[in-house]
Amino acid sequence: MNAALSYADDHFDTFVDELDDLLRIPSVSTDSEYADDVQRAAGWLADHMADVGIDHTEVIATDGHPIVYGEHIEDEDQPTVLIYGHYDVQPPDPLELWNSPPFEPTYRNGTVYARGACDDKGQMFMHVKAAEAYLEAEGELPVNLKFVIEGEEETGSAQLKSFLKEHSDRLKADVVLISDTAMFGKDKPSIIYGLRGLAYVEVTLTGPDRDLHSGLYGGAVDNPATVLARLIEGLHDDEHRITVPGFYDDVRELTEEERAIYRDLPFDEQEWMNAIGLDDVRHEAGYSLLECLSARPALDVNGMWGGYTGEGAKTVLPARAHAKISTRLVPDQDPDDIAGKLKAYFEEQVPSTVDLTFRDLHGGDPVLFDPDQPAMQTAADALESVFDREPFFLRHGGTIPILATFQKELGLDSILMGFGLNSDAIHSPNEHFGLDRFEQGIESIIRFHQLYGDREAK
Amino acid sequence: MNAALSYADDHFDTFVDELDDLLRIPSVSTDSEYADDVQRAAGWLADHMADVGIDHTEVIATDGHPIVYGEHIEDEDQPTVLIYGHYDVQPPDPLELWNSPPFEPTYRNGTVYARGACDDKGQMFMHVKAAEAYLEAEGELPVNLKFVIEGEEETGSAQLKSFLKEHSDRLKADVVLISDTAMFGKDKPSIIYGLRGLAYVEVTLTGPDRDLHSGLYGGAVDNPATVLARLIEGLHDDEHRITVPGFYDDVRELTEEERAIYRDLPFDEQEWMNAIGLDDVRHEAGYSLLECLSARPALDVNGMWGGYTGEGAKTVLPARAHAKISTRLVPDQDPDDIAGKLKAYFEEQVPSTVDLTFRDLHGGDPVLFDPDQPAMQTAADALESVFDREPFFLRHGGTIPILATFQKELGLDSILMGFGLNSDAIHSPNEHFGLDRFEQGIESIIRFHQLYGDREAK
Repeated sequence: MNAALSYADDHFDTFVDELDDLLRIPSVSTDSEYADDVQRAAGWLADHMADVGIDHTEVIATDGHPIVYGEHIEDEDQPTVLIYGHYDVQPPDPLELWNSPPFEPTYRNGTVYARGACDDKGQMFMHVKAAEAYLEAEGELPVNLKFVIEGEEETGSAQLKSFLKEHSDRLKADVVLISDTAMFGKDKPSIIYGLRGLAYVEVTLTGPDRDLHSGLYGGAVDNPATVLARLIEGLHDDEHRITVPGFYDDVRELTEEERAIYRDLPFDEQEWMNAIGLDDVRHEAGYSLLECLSARPALDVNGMWGGYTGEGAKTVLPARAHAKISTRLVPDQDPDDIAGKLKAYFEEQVPSTVDLTFRDLHGGDPVLFDPDQPAMQTAADALESVFDREPFFLRHGGTIPILATFQKELGLDSILMGFGLNSDAIHSPNEHFGLDRFEQGIESIIRFHQLYGDREAK
Repeated sequence: MNAALSYADDHFDTFVDELDDLLRIPSVSTDSEYADDVQRAAGWLADHMADVGIDHTEVIATDGHPIVYGEHIEDEDQPTVLIYGHYDVQPPDPLELWNSPPFEPTYRNGTVYARGACDDKGQMFMHVKAAEAYLEAEGELPVNLKFVIEGEEETGSAQLKSFLKEHSDRLKADVVLISDTAMFGKDKPSIIYGLRGLAYVEVTLTGPDRDLHSGLYGGAVDNPATVLARLIEGLHDDEHRITVPGFYDDVRELTEEERAIYRDLPFDEQEWMNAIGLDDVRHEAGYSLLECLSARPALDVNGMWGGYTGEGAKTVLPARAHAKISTRLVPDQDPDDIAGKLKAYFEEQVPSTVDLTFRDLHGGDPVLFDPDQPAMQTAADALESVFDREPFFLRHGGTIPILATFQKELGLDSILMGFGLNSDAIHSPNEHFGLDRFEQGIESIIRFHQLYGDREAK
């Protein structure tokens, strides 16, 4: 192990220079203007992976952006780790808010500023560098590695699901390892073992067949905006529980162990509120704020509109009112089932004065992995050896639909061992990544492979 | 009387030709591109009024569009009728929906199609023609006439209020006569004796200091859109009464006589619903639909917005949510008082999780005139002699703020003797006015002047 770690230490500046090259390719997946750059990033990455000694690398075309696949089978008796990451990035807009150009990596105080520095080029690249360290320093890897690095994560991973289905034989592995999340805080290493799912719907209520004059019709025409407000209001009770019939039927309750972990997290509620300009919060009764953010389901209005929304006063009684409503789900809630229950709620509640149009926009499954499974504990040991403290086991409020696909199609749990920070400004101007974390990440991955290979060898 | 009526009958084709000239001037008051045309319309009208024999006519400049003033004092012992109307028109957009150009009057089946044909050039011009008929046929008028024809009715009559205040001595009269409203139906002559007032406010709720990711924050951040829905929902109770404390304090109850009139109106609720594409209505318990449309106050959301309103799904937890809310008021409710009560409601109800911004956008006083007063009965007799049936006495759900100003500044009640129909498409493409109603209107006004002069001579 020492040789790989020494190699990484000796070559760290080179690693940064190579990451710099990758960060200069504006692989913005959502904008067809950048399609050639996305292709170029995939090629660069596959070539680089071959250069550092990964046996088989390939740029696999899809109906969208290509997937970079890599495979290094050391020994059939060794466990296999499937590395998932992405080489595409968010658009850099608004450009005028960047202090340095988004695709010209700039270094200030040991931090690299560039689009993709943290999400996910910087973190994904750590896995390539960890493999290189073994292959160059020791000539072999303690685990078999498979890399699935996609180019459409920022646009919804449309091609990846069918890719995983089609290649399920080739992708056989023991665990998925991902670095695309944040730590609980600086020097607070973290493993995410659960994420919420998503059911996102849109509701339209139509009253009269056109906008009416509120003077001539107000008082007898049931206002679709008012009706929508009534239906939205009815979605929560006084304890901020969701009232949709059957909504909680499949919710797996937090265990006492989990609740103890939540209680022990060094969390300052006032600081958290200050950071987003809040004076007060509102959440489900009987659960802590952190539990409600990640381990309990939630329902939010993402958008709501109807009638006149310009300057000044217009005395219109709107024909229609709309809302985009999403729920965050926890195991074992199912997005399709929940969308159906939302639909039933609206159909049941909608009065005879308006017509309902309900659309199920999209969904994603929640996941919850056993934090006590050996791979998780191995990741924890690897992190502890680098950070000199036990990592936090966390559940996360967001949704990564592909994790459920890994589980369903390949039977694999994922270990989310990320090195970002919430302050890294991913998806925002001045995205950055601390080079100390780039280094800690590479070291943690090197240590994980060694420990996992030792413990799981057949 | 016969001579004036005969004159009007003999010269009807000329009257239509003259109206045609006025309709060709695109006096769109809201669009500065048309400012010269608005000025031109005022000049045309003043010249025309002088031509037909009105003693004194004047184009009076204001800080906005000019007011055309006319005065013909026949005899100090005769009663004085103040004619109010407007020569400005709504914009003609969307032009592509007009079957003939909006400012090239076109005649189909005895109907003139043009912007302003009904609202209000066609109706206002009937008063000029009635005066002409007397002056040309009989050499004198049975009443004194004062004309106040403004050019800003479609933009809120901003200059008129101060004009009435400044010229209150000069504008002394016995009653205001206005033709700018609709009849209950074809061949159903109507006098409007009450209109609702208006209090229009805008509410903004601010939660976090920026839009948040609904996955990372959903479940603990009180969603401003959800809170707004709750506050809007709370504005009505189960009987669709408005819950704002004190809202009904000053509401003058309908008299038994008025309710009898409402009951007797030939109103087909199903037909009314069909015309606006409704399957069902909702209104205050204990009152009929028609009462709720005009003689009871109402509260409507005119616009509501917050968060993501584009295509597809965006998982945003909005920082802000907004609503434009207006109430229609009945005597003796006061717009400022009601806006204050709305403000108090929101301040009382808003939770500690969001900040409230409340804006009072504008208001207008309700009016209710005694339908039994002599001038009203005179108008009814005039209409009956033309239409061969008693007119309907109606209250109207809309708001004409200037009526309260006539009452407050000049001490004058208004008689709303209009000849429009709800189907005349005012404010819409293909606005039109039946020439039969143009003729009936002129005749009704001629008869009104004669009867009013006879009955009210000092």
